[in-house]
Amino acid sequence: MVKRNLETCFAPGLFNPEEHVNSIVVIIDILRASSAICTAFANGAVSILPVADAAEAMEYKSKGYLVAAERDGFVLDFADFGNSPFNFTRERVEGKTIVYSTTNGTGIINQASSAYLIVIGSFLNLTALTDWIIKMERDVLLFCAGWKNRFNLEDSVCAGAIAERMMETGLFTTICDSTLAAMDLWSHASNDLPAYIDKTAQRSRLRDKNLDDCIGFCLTIDFTNKIPIMKNGFLVDNIL
Amino acid sequence: MVKRNLETCFAPGLFNPEEHVNSIVVIIDILRASSAICTAFANGAVSILPVADAAEAMEYKSKGYLVAAERDGFVLDFADFGNSPFNFTRERVEGKTIVYSTTNGTGIINQASSAYLIVIGSFLNLTALTDWIIKMERDVLLFCAGWKNRFNLEDSVCAGAIAERMMETGLFTTICDSTLAAMDLWSHASNDLPAYIDKTAQRSRLRDKNLDDCIGFCLTIDFTNKIPIMKNGFLVDNIL
Repeated sequence: MVKRNLETCFAPGLFNPEEHVNSIVVIIDILRASSAICTAFANGAVSILPVADAAEAMEYKSKGYLVAAERDGFVLDFADFGNSPFNFTRERVEGKTIVYSTTNGTGIINQASSAYLIVIGSFLNLTALTDWIIKMERDVLLFCAGWKNRFNLEDSVCAGAIAERMMETGLFTTICDSTLAAMDLWSHASNDLPAYIDKTAQRSRLRDKNLDDCIGFCLTIDFTNKIPIMKNGFLVDNIL
Repeated sequence: MVKRNLETCFAPGLFNPEEHVNSIVVIIDILRASSAICTAFANGAVSILPVADAAEAMEYKSKGYLVAAERDGFVLDFADFGNSPFNFTRERVEGKTIVYSTTNGTGIINQASSAYLIVIGSFLNLTALTDWIIKMERDVLLFCAGWKNRFNLEDSVCAGAIAERMMETGLFTTICDSTLAAMDLWSHASNDLPAYIDKTAQRSRLRDKNLDDCIGFCLTIDFTNKIPIMKNGFLVDNIL
């Protein structure tokens, strides 16, 4: 049996789209975009339209769409709300399409648009996501959003958690040092994930802005079994 | 006392030169460029001219220079030798200037040319390098060459070893997740460094080409007290 290839990319500036046209690309931006997206579907959202550009998001707002948009953690003034998962309540999102623009996460969704399939990953949907990926007959890239084209720890340890589950099946192989590093960092972090995340730069940035209330929630493993995938430019709930 | 800032960059695509014009940039490409450069000075080389472009290296050869040049591990046909540290013997390099071009290492030296100072780091000069950096009144960036704009493990753990020594002094602060990750990876690797490096992609690449004979040597801590720094476009031995 030919093993499938597993790779990890730690930041947008390291991504080479040509290498992943036949792969499933898992978008990981746990503080907070990918956690918010999983939460939206858990709370009944129908679809999410990721837009990288704030001006584009504003245009959708003027057309009557529900718009979630932030930069550096702050809600853009025209938007309905920002990107804390706690914003995506059932009352707000059930049955709705949401236009969504964030600092890092929606940018890498665009970057990966030539991939075979884009799927959203976080601790919130860890088991559902990995069980589903394992069933698919595809190579996989774990694509960490990072922060303004820097490596970040929180997305890397989440990539490590996903990678560990995949490698344990024996179905995957990796010659990718980023994947090995992510798994080693996850093995450091997994005993006490909140304590580990407490030392990250993003933790400090969110705390400084009083936006850190959702961090504990974002580290909840298996809050939902939703698997948001890209279809025709929209994120939708994958139902196999 | 204001603490000095310590950052780490894992690959060329993540480097932002504007942020480091006042910093000491430590170039880390331990398999094999930065180890080879340290070895050259240990064996009496006078200076090294790093050139990123193979054509430029060839021109210097035609002018009579001693030229070390490789791509993907293989010696370029016009060059005197490649970039194994074992090539830089006392017989060959003592009293000489060497023109040097490699796959990853010399490229990031050029990228960092606007920094306050460029210095070459490896396990081979770990203590001398860190002791010297600690004395300097500057912020520091540990710049890992990676491999073809990918993260690699061997340079990252070396950055972690350097960072650990610097952070232990209490003179530095870091809000850089890459530095924290590098230190965690070093703590994984340090108990048995050769075994850890054995799993890296570069280890496999070098083994496939029978170029892995020097790896054990490249992991030797404190083989030399040489600190190669850039001065007027040349690497020279730093004598304070």
